[in-house]
Amino acid sequence: MPRVVVDVVVKPEILDPQGQAILRALPRLGVHGVRDVRQGKHFEFDVDDDVDAETLQRIAGELLANPVIEEWTVHWR
Amino acid sequence: MPRVVVDVVVKPEILDPQGQAILRALPRLGVHGVRDVRQGKHFEFDVDDDVDAETLQRIAGELLANPVIEEWTVHWR
Repeated sequence: MPRVVVDVVVKPEILDPQGQAILRALPRLGVHGVRDVRQGKHFEFDVDDDVDAETLQRIAGELLANPVIEEWTVHWR
Repeated sequence: MPRVVVDVVVKPEILDPQGQAILRALPRLGVHGVRDVRQGKHFEFDVDDDVDAETLQRIAGELLANPVIEEWTVHWR
């Protein structure tokens, strides 16, 4: 059965306080060299063979993401 | 600058009420043929060239995920 992954992230021009909080925590872990972090949502769909990309795009735009501030990618894995 | 993606999902044996809520909402959108949905977290890291996979694994296990109930993947994009 095909698995489809949808990743939703806030648009680059929108502030991401969750990602910034992770970025600020890294030096305390002794980690250096990370320049930016963005946090988003990850979805895995198990679908029938006849579920197409257009359907997944509609699910993403209507159910998973807020199109005003977020963007997403859909890919078959 | 390399970009590294970390995806965190609940382990298969752990209930995922967020994914189940999405699954139940799909017929109302007129979508059929989706058999399962899992929701997780998605992280994008912009890192220097010398940041290695071991470091990202440590960040995931100590900062991004709860290893008791979640598992993760790390991949360079």
